[in-house]
Amino acid sequence: MYSFWNPEGIPPRTLAPGVTAKIASGEKLMFSLVTLAPNAVVPTHSHPHEQMGMMVSGTMEFTIAGETRVFSGNELYLVPGGVSHSATAGPGGAVALDAFSPPREEYR
Amino acid sequence: MYSFWNPEGIPPRTLAPGVTAKIASGEKLMFSLVTLAPNAVVPTHSHPHEQMGMMVSGTMEFTIAGETRVFSGNELYLVPGGVSHSATAGPGGAVALDAFSPPREEYR
Repeated sequence: MYSFWNPEGIPPRTLAPGVTAKIASGEKLMFSLVTLAPNAVVPTHSHPHEQMGMMVSGTMEFTIAGETRVFSGNELYLVPGGVSHSATAGPGGAVALDAFSPPREEYR
Repeated sequence: MYSFWNPEGIPPRTLAPGVTAKIASGEKLMFSLVTLAPNAVVPTHSHPHEQMGMMVSGTMEFTIAGETRVFSGNELYLVPGGVSHSATAGPGGAVALDAFSPPREEYR
């Protein structure tokens, strides 16, 4: 069934200190609209799910497989399944949209 | 392999008059950052790929399976595979991020 969501109506889920996510999901895709407080950190982790993301606002230092870049604007990234990654928000915080396939069952 | 993209470096692909997309893809996920000129129309269509999308800026009248809503802010939508949908940008135009799974081979 098709669906529409206003993120303001989705309860935030805490992923790490200062990091919350609004989750919406289909069968093959899951969206996670992530808000990071200034300088908040998502520790290094990995998961078998493929992940693509887009910066929505702010800046974020993002490390994939040991390579670090600073993202801003609407820059995009791809994290293949099983590849370690971490993020640190800039001094103004950050909002990013992450997409996962398959959906992460632990976030449903 | 992981990847990073600045949308400014991705050649735009024309989807319909006044509608262009910047495409980036992994193995299971494809992102399409779509820019619609004021009042531009994406005609009714469907595809077997599941689609989720998020408004990035502007407003867009979006019709899924005959139900029409106006999206703004960072509202989210899900279009299951095979379900007809169409879009008309508002008077200020719109930008939306669409995600597909599996990737649409015709966009690679």
